[in-house]
Amino acid sequence: MKVEVCYSPQSYPLFENKEAIVVVIDVLRATSAIVTAFYNGVEKIMPVANKGIAISMKQKDTIVAAEQNGQIVDGVEMGNSPFSYMSPTIKGKTIVISTTNGTQAILTCKDAHQVLIGSFLNLNVICDYIIAQNRDVLLLCSGWKNKFNLEDTLFAGAIVNKLTENNTFDLQCDSAIASKNLYLQAQPDLYEFLNLSSHRIRLEKLNLERDVKYCMTLNICPVIPILKGDYLVKI
Amino acid sequence: MKVEVCYSPQSYPLFENKEAIVVVIDVLRATSAIVTAFYNGVEKIMPVANKGIAISMKQKDTIVAAEQNGQIVDGVEMGNSPFSYMSPTIKGKTIVISTTNGTQAILTCKDAHQVLIGSFLNLNVICDYIIAQNRDVLLLCSGWKNKFNLEDTLFAGAIVNKLTENNTFDLQCDSAIASKNLYLQAQPDLYEFLNLSSHRIRLEKLNLERDVKYCMTLNICPVIPILKGDYLVKI
Repeated sequence: MKVEVCYSPQSYPLFENKEAIVVVIDVLRATSAIVTAFYNGVEKIMPVANKGIAISMKQKDTIVAAEQNGQIVDGVEMGNSPFSYMSPTIKGKTIVISTTNGTQAILTCKDAHQVLIGSFLNLNVICDYIIAQNRDVLLLCSGWKNKFNLEDTLFAGAIVNKLTENNTFDLQCDSAIASKNLYLQAQPDLYEFLNLSSHRIRLEKLNLERDVKYCMTLNICPVIPILKGDYLVKI
Repeated sequence: MKVEVCYSPQSYPLFENKEAIVVVIDVLRATSAIVTAFYNGVEKIMPVANKGIAISMKQKDTIVAAEQNGQIVDGVEMGNSPFSYMSPTIKGKTIVISTTNGTQAILTCKDAHQVLIGSFLNLNVICDYIIAQNRDVLLLCSGWKNKFNLEDTLFAGAIVNKLTENNTFDLQCDSAIASKNLYLQAQPDLYEFLNLSSHRIRLEKLNLERDVKYCMTLNICPVIPILKGDYLVKI
């Protein structure tokens, strides 16, 4: 089996493999928020392409979440700060969500064998699950508006590192090799390594330091969201 | 001024900046071959989109070079092994060249303010030149069939490292930060670091170890090829 890393939804067609498990990654902050939501009891989450669709889906027992360029969209209940997904009010509910990068990435790969949602918060459980499946794996970084970003790459590297520890997976993909090396370099202090990243700077301007620290914390939400039809549910 | 790195010609529209100097990078082997050719006295080089166009340009005093998937195309004089560009027969000649990735990348960015050809062979002269120009810089990696590759990224990182040594250039582009970090990790032994890269493995299969070692050698061809109209010439 092989593990590959795709740095941007734009490049997905070059990596597309319908037999593979795809892990969608948007560390700051969509996939961290989604993992947090399932850990806190949300029933299901529907990722949609834009805020207009999200808002039009508003119904009883549905919460609408929409983020654009790092900020909550006017008139909806939530953005993509993970802290808002810890509220007891989401328990048993359905969330419809649109974000700048993460939900686009989920929709891009929806025809893969399985689509999982990954973040530092559920690193170990997702790796254990993947290893048990015995299939090719593609790690799809959401990036920032189709550009490479550092935080998604570091998390992809963390997965590659785990999957190749016992030579279970082949490592012949250059972006997987680069991700793993960057992760190993950053591992002693992920937060410090990200100090210079463009998105970190963007979030700092928005006063979201607390979100960044939370999103870089390992294994505090051991749940795996998986796409079933139009909805993410907990495995 | 800023320095940015674009990992694939496919992503070029996301980074396009008509005021910038673009450095095209295809370490294994197109840009290394082109730099070698100018160091060995070629007059000019015309990069073209495919082997058909290259072959149709055959004239007296023109040499046709074409490579596809790492191998020389049937019926042309040269592929893209740098060693064939050291022959005294190229002195004062025009070469028309088509390669899998490098010439595509050159054509992709041809409308930029300046297009330079970079490789480890001309690292220092290209950095000195760029620093003197006082402009934004975009490092365009040719990659492999639009995928990220390790060797081009390491060379981009070598340039970023030089340009940011004295804080002359802003480093707010995540792919530039990642490239620099990978280069610093690889610097003690670039050849060894590339041991696992996909292209290295591809070239090994084609028995091109000698080419790889040559292409990873620093500063042995201190010339700068620049695009003027349809032709690359020496600055």
